[in-house]
Amino acid sequence: MRFLKLFALVIFTTTLVSQAQTQRQVANPTAQALASPTPTPTPLPPPTVKIDGYRAAAARIIGAALTSDRAYARLAHLTDHIGNRLSGSKNLERAIEWAATEMKRDGLDNVRTEKVMVPHWVRGEESLEMLTPVSRKLQMLGLGNSVGTPAEGISAEAVVVRDFAELDRLGEKVRGKILVYNAPYESYGVTVSYRLQGASRAARYGAVAALVRSITPVSLQTPHTGAMNYDPNLPKIPVAAITIEVAEFLQRMNDRGDRPTLRLKMEAKFLPDAESANVIAEVKGSEKPDEIVLISGHFDSWDVGQGAHDDGGGCIVAWEAARLLKELGLKPRRTIRVVLYTNEENGLRGGNAYRDAHQAEISKHILAIESDSGVYRPEGFGLVATAPSQVRSNLQEIAKLLSGIRADGIAANGGGADIGPLMRDGVVGASLDVEGSHYFDIHHTPADTLDKVDPQELALCVATMAVMAYTVADLPNPY
Amino acid sequence: MRFLKLFALVIFTTTLVSQAQTQRQVANPTAQALASPTPTPTPLPPPTVKIDGYRAAAARIIGAALTSDRAYARLAHLTDHIGNRLSGSKNLERAIEWAATEMKRDGLDNVRTEKVMVPHWVRGEESLEMLTPVSRKLQMLGLGNSVGTPAEGISAEAVVVRDFAELDRLGEKVRGKILVYNAPYESYGVTVSYRLQGASRAARYGAVAALVRSITPVSLQTPHTGAMNYDPNLPKIPVAAITIEVAEFLQRMNDRGDRPTLRLKMEAKFLPDAESANVIAEVKGSEKPDEIVLISGHFDSWDVGQGAHDDGGGCIVAWEAARLLKELGLKPRRTIRVVLYTNEENGLRGGNAYRDAHQAEISKHILAIESDSGVYRPEGFGLVATAPSQVRSNLQEIAKLLSGIRADGIAANGGGADIGPLMRDGVVGASLDVEGSHYFDIHHTPADTLDKVDPQELALCVATMAVMAYTVADLPNPY
Repeated sequence: MRFLKLFALVIFTTTLVSQAQTQRQVANPTAQALASPTPTPTPLPPPTVKIDGYRAAAARIIGAALTSDRAYARLAHLTDHIGNRLSGSKNLERAIEWAATEMKRDGLDNVRTEKVMVPHWVRGEESLEMLTPVSRKLQMLGLGNSVGTPAEGISAEAVVVRDFAELDRLGEKVRGKILVYNAPYESYGVTVSYRLQGASRAARYGAVAALVRSITPVSLQTPHTGAMNYDPNLPKIPVAAITIEVAEFLQRMNDRGDRPTLRLKMEAKFLPDAESANVIAEVKGSEKPDEIVLISGHFDSWDVGQGAHDDGGGCIVAWEAARLLKELGLKPRRTIRVVLYTNEENGLRGGNAYRDAHQAEISKHILAIESDSGVYRPEGFGLVATAPSQVRSNLQEIAKLLSGIRADGIAANGGGADIGPLMRDGVVGASLDVEGSHYFDIHHTPADTLDKVDPQELALCVATMAVMAYTVADLPNPY
Repeated sequence: MRFLKLFALVIFTTTLVSQAQTQRQVANPTAQALASPTPTPTPLPPPTVKIDGYRAAAARIIGAALTSDRAYARLAHLTDHIGNRLSGSKNLERAIEWAATEMKRDGLDNVRTEKVMVPHWVRGEESLEMLTPVSRKLQMLGLGNSVGTPAEGISAEAVVVRDFAELDRLGEKVRGKILVYNAPYESYGVTVSYRLQGASRAARYGAVAALVRSITPVSLQTPHTGAMNYDPNLPKIPVAAITIEVAEFLQRMNDRGDRPTLRLKMEAKFLPDAESANVIAEVKGSEKPDEIVLISGHFDSWDVGQGAHDDGGGCIVAWEAARLLKELGLKPRRTIRVVLYTNEENGLRGGNAYRDAHQAEISKHILAIESDSGVYRPEGFGLVATAPSQVRSNLQEIAKLLSGIRADGIAANGGGADIGPLMRDGVVGASLDVEGSHYFDIHHTPADTLDKVDPQELALCVATMAVMAYTVADLPNPY
């Protein structure tokens, strides 16, 4: 009986795994860091911190997080009542004002906004249609930072390639064409290069526009936007994301020799830079208030969906972690500083502005954590690979406080875009790591909506962030 | 070690199952037929057919299907070069003309089209937006057969219910409101009642329009259309599908007391009935040409996506099964008749017209099989529950010819919408059954496109259909 049951289980598992492989390819970008060849682990020094004194505080934090609906209610307000929040938009302004007001009401310390001028890209109307051999509307979504087309659009034959190597082989043959990249998803980190560099690499050979298969393992005619960059030495051509379905349709047309022609229309353009702000609030340190543990997310989002997982959730996690500590009367020795950065998605002006404005105190940042991988079930933290081994050993020890909620991992690498400038200046950086298997299904799409957020998983993210931030901020000598 | 491995497997399986449950609920509608309470199986009589003489033919058919790209190439032409095919559309006319021409070229017998007048519903422009408390465009797709709205749209407060019982409790409170059904997916068969009856059941209490959560286990802001019916005794109010995301957004608004107001605009209307046709082709029987094994699909589709799985694939399976037999020179004793029905989706005029036009030979139909559940990996056939036990026993025996491709199941129930009129007149009906776990992800959506069809699975469907049809048509006494 036992054997039969287990055998049935094996069959079942095999079926599930096989389906999962059909539906999605490698989905976890952080897994790349652990890939080939098998490293010989360097033994870490023993931890120099004692965590027993923090078990009671961790228990209170976890209990409070799991019995409060504040985080979810606030994320609901942000997503349902404010909505998506692209840099320069009225919605982002409203979100910033709301957060600063509420943070003061929460009794957080030193609540303020720090002005940042941000790029103001607007999408406008946009469309893609096939003109020949059949007339058909095609799903698309312009890429952020792209230039627009003339009002009548750009009409040209499409040429489809699977990768940059195929483009390079075609070379000048793409002159005057709309270049279509149909690169299957390998991982976000790998495949996003087509979104970032695709336009300029096509322009180099004279293409007049580019279309990029959305960076995702799955699709239900779901286009994914995201930032792109132009090589300043090459002509700027318009570029849009297309769905997996459209990319495969164009690939089939291409491979059959149908020579499809397309018309791309995009009103995309930059308006003058707009005023925005980083939102900052603190739990002031009781003994060493000038030393800082920074916890953060980015408050801007793309202009589609609700920016729920990316990164409304991450902001609420950092904010609510601080609020919970206040509510519980937990006063760490050092200051915990919440930063909700502006303009992560298409400029990183918030992260750079914070570094510039806080130059004098950068060395006082003990740790900077960013939550920007969605607010799924937390697994722990990703610690920047260059962190000193004593720091890694101690954070591993501290993370044991989170083993009861299985969020005690300290992954081999981590960090965040907004805290990147700080990390380059020597601050130890980390990411809140979460179960990421569905993040890139919805990332930068109209489907990044609150229904995808599990209230309990969000609460566990808050607890994970709060326990780590509090313990590091309060230990006499965290490393 | 074995224990540890198995333990790891259990954990892994548990994780997968848990994820699968979060992502999708019961997805296989045919599973409902097997549900509670556990029946005591009635022993079947021993089969009266000998299948050994058909192993060679089955081998040739399976081999030929798995080495030909004809089915996929034809489905590609139908989906890529013709496109979706709603009744009354130019595309459906083109598809019918193309199929009849190609079937003649294939050398099939008695190729003809049989005229059918079909309803001609057109969608027109349509939109849904929230007016208050926030302004937002919402994803929608009008339901087939719905009436339209006045040109200025219908603006009203939304009231959200989870099921009909909640509607009945509200009763007259929904007068003047837009009623929103946010019924979570249980199974297609169960949950589709909201799409079919939702408008009239809301109109009974005075609602001015209705919105129905799409009938699907998953969504990436994916609206699913489909037919609806009006109760002739109640006012006809416009009705549209909304995505799971929009339904949950409206539910949250409703539950918080936000009293959202919406504006629904739909140009949907019926034009005069249009001329269409069933497409028919045969492999003429050598000894009993008047006895018929009918294999079929429906050639019309909804007006979104490509109608690839629903039901372009099913049509190609029936057609290619017959063509393969011709190519292999396999001449069955009875006639195998391919029927590509028109107007399954919003009228069933094709199925009814076939029954009416072939009244005199209905009793000569030995078996009618419809392929309309997608063209995923075939699992066998679903045989109508009322089939005589000797028929069931013999078809189970014949299906053993398909055990090598694991398509030898004969499920407890089956049939098809288009062959329904024949079945009601006593013809034994069956469905081609396939692995259906992803069918309702894309059913009636813009994402029902060719990239979702696996060429090998399509070929296996062709082989399964051809082996069963040939063997039943050729056995001296199939039952």
